[in-house]
Amino acid sequence: MKRRDFLKKAGIGAAAAAAATAVNAPFVHAQKTIQWKMVTTWPPKLPFLQTGAERLAKRVEQMSGGKFKIRVYAAGELVPAFGSFEAVSNGTVQAGSGAAYYWAGKAPASQWFAAVPFGLNADGMAAWFWGGDGLKLWEEVYKPFNLIPRPAGTTGVQMGGWFNKKINTIDDFKGLKMRIPGLGGKVLAKAGGTVVLTPGGEIFTNLERGVIDATEWVGPLHDFIMGFHKVAKYYYYPGWHEPGTVLENFFNKKAYESLPKDYQLMLDIATAETYNWMLAGFNAGNGAALEKLITQHKVNLVRFPEKVMAQLRKLAQDTLEEIAAKDPMSKKVNDNFKKFQKQIGIWGEVSEKAYYDLIAEKYSLKK
Amino acid sequence: MKRRDFLKKAGIGAAAAAAATAVNAPFVHAQKTIQWKMVTTWPPKLPFLQTGAERLAKRVEQMSGGKFKIRVYAAGELVPAFGSFEAVSNGTVQAGSGAAYYWAGKAPASQWFAAVPFGLNADGMAAWFWGGDGLKLWEEVYKPFNLIPRPAGTTGVQMGGWFNKKINTIDDFKGLKMRIPGLGGKVLAKAGGTVVLTPGGEIFTNLERGVIDATEWVGPLHDFIMGFHKVAKYYYYPGWHEPGTVLENFFNKKAYESLPKDYQLMLDIATAETYNWMLAGFNAGNGAALEKLITQHKVNLVRFPEKVMAQLRKLAQDTLEEIAAKDPMSKKVNDNFKKFQKQIGIWGEVSEKAYYDLIAEKYSLKK
Repeated sequence: MKRRDFLKKAGIGAAAAAAATAVNAPFVHAQKTIQWKMVTTWPPKLPFLQTGAERLAKRVEQMSGGKFKIRVYAAGELVPAFGSFEAVSNGTVQAGSGAAYYWAGKAPASQWFAAVPFGLNADGMAAWFWGGDGLKLWEEVYKPFNLIPRPAGTTGVQMGGWFNKKINTIDDFKGLKMRIPGLGGKVLAKAGGTVVLTPGGEIFTNLERGVIDATEWVGPLHDFIMGFHKVAKYYYYPGWHEPGTVLENFFNKKAYESLPKDYQLMLDIATAETYNWMLAGFNAGNGAALEKLITQHKVNLVRFPEKVMAQLRKLAQDTLEEIAAKDPMSKKVNDNFKKFQKQIGIWGEVSEKAYYDLIAEKYSLKK
Repeated sequence: MKRRDFLKKAGIGAAAAAAATAVNAPFVHAQKTIQWKMVTTWPPKLPFLQTGAERLAKRVEQMSGGKFKIRVYAAGELVPAFGSFEAVSNGTVQAGSGAAYYWAGKAPASQWFAAVPFGLNADGMAAWFWGGDGLKLWEEVYKPFNLIPRPAGTTGVQMGGWFNKKINTIDDFKGLKMRIPGLGGKVLAKAGGTVVLTPGGEIFTNLERGVIDATEWVGPLHDFIMGFHKVAKYYYYPGWHEPGTVLENFFNKKAYESLPKDYQLMLDIATAETYNWMLAGFNAGNGAALEKLITQHKVNLVRFPEKVMAQLRKLAQDTLEEIAAKDPMSKKVNDNFKKFQKQIGIWGEVSEKAYYDLIAEKYSLKK
């Protein structure tokens, strides 16, 4: 109810209302103080992911003149990493930060909004969200959970992973023990590999001891921090399984809708801006880290064989169709995604691909 | 001077100050009403460029609860398109929107912040601005003009242009009359071509009548609106001359610095967010327009021969070095740009390039 309506309904006459308005005038424009909590799925200080959430909170606070505050909690500080979806859904806290494929068990269709093997890259995902139906569909998928999703960042193309066994044919995946979650893991399993879901902190040791033969992580910047180059022989590219992984912020619907419109917009705009900032930071940081890995650590960079990629791609398509066959919402999202990828793919080929072909000559990496 | 300091210095005692504060308290938080003018270099309603500036103004106004208003004027409405830099520099208006290469005559180094032939693409430019020294250097270049620049959008890779003569060897550029401004034009001239600077509204007729043999414009979405497919035989790609053209907002330094911090941040964040929104919109729109051009209008899409590109690239490097040799600031920017491009180029090759190679198979455009 608006204040004016309230005065009217409360039976206060026009003159009294006018007097009240005059006395209180400055208060009408004074903004509400709002305190939110955001629970992330990230370890404390994780570059770009956790720090991006903290940067967002700071910026919203500054834009609102200190009146809209969001306190950010890393994974485990308030709720466990994978408890954040539930905590925001039921209104325990107002906001969360994660990646939509974490919630595959609750809503299989959510996976398309994070990373699709052989799907859209970071620019393609952005085009789907803001120039296509992507964001609208994502909102539809999260609606039953009382959540409003927003793209909040992207890692760009990830690396294919660190391997201690060489991949020459598709058969080399048979029996390969690899840490690879999500849809990528499903594809690996179809190729005969064994998916091992190792928590982040244990991957290094497992790789060193041969408990796993391979692991994917993110890209040069984050991989370098993990030290995988010390315990793995080959660094494979490209990251067919996560070609432009999108991170998300999600808000409790009731909390979001009860925000004053200007705060809502600050939150939305600052979140969308994070997408760009994060991709820029990842690209710059990955460039510097890769140079160091190649020149100082003599990392053996290997490209997946073309034929193996074509075969994995077929398995990836089968995987997506199987999920879509079992869940109508996944089918709806997959159909839209495929159509969009086809249309934008032709453009990508004459624009970015053709241009990368031109400038790549200069650096002569082996094919 | 802060209000509290003022009261102190004015000799008002603590009690009086407290009373004054109590009475005026709501006013302390009430925000200043600010009205700015922004003069753009764009025609009215030009998708993404002019509409992006208008969208920005609307969002800043909404975030500030209607208190920070920016009225946007298209080219010629208040000052001529190329008068906007001067008008903002001298404080006639507070903000402008354009592309940095328009100001090559005032500051040659500005060209690196818009489009460098065979230089960084849209993602690379973003990485240079926000993950490298790009934005800092740009601020340095604009400082003598009392201007603060901000990246405010990008077209992504442009198309190579519409041609009525086929380009098979570098010699085919000899005598070719082409509408191509900026550094691209300088490179064309080095290859023996004739640069014709035709205003936007006259290009179609000039191409139709053979006054020019070729023209570049933007990409499928904007080119389709211009109707070039009706009067040109070949649509060349990729846009070697503008691989990720960046649009800018620029603010009068004094006006910007006198903004309340929260308004300044709203302006910065909403401008940065436009970068992403615009690239997403261009990619989605270009995809749809290209499909229409190919399927409905049977446009003859042709890729520039690899050898011609390698030769033009050499001429482009010469062009940049020549400008840098004459202007210390251009040298500083060019050196930084080259170093950054090399570092991020290796990463681009194992990430986006390798990934585009994978997914491109599907659409089988001719090479």
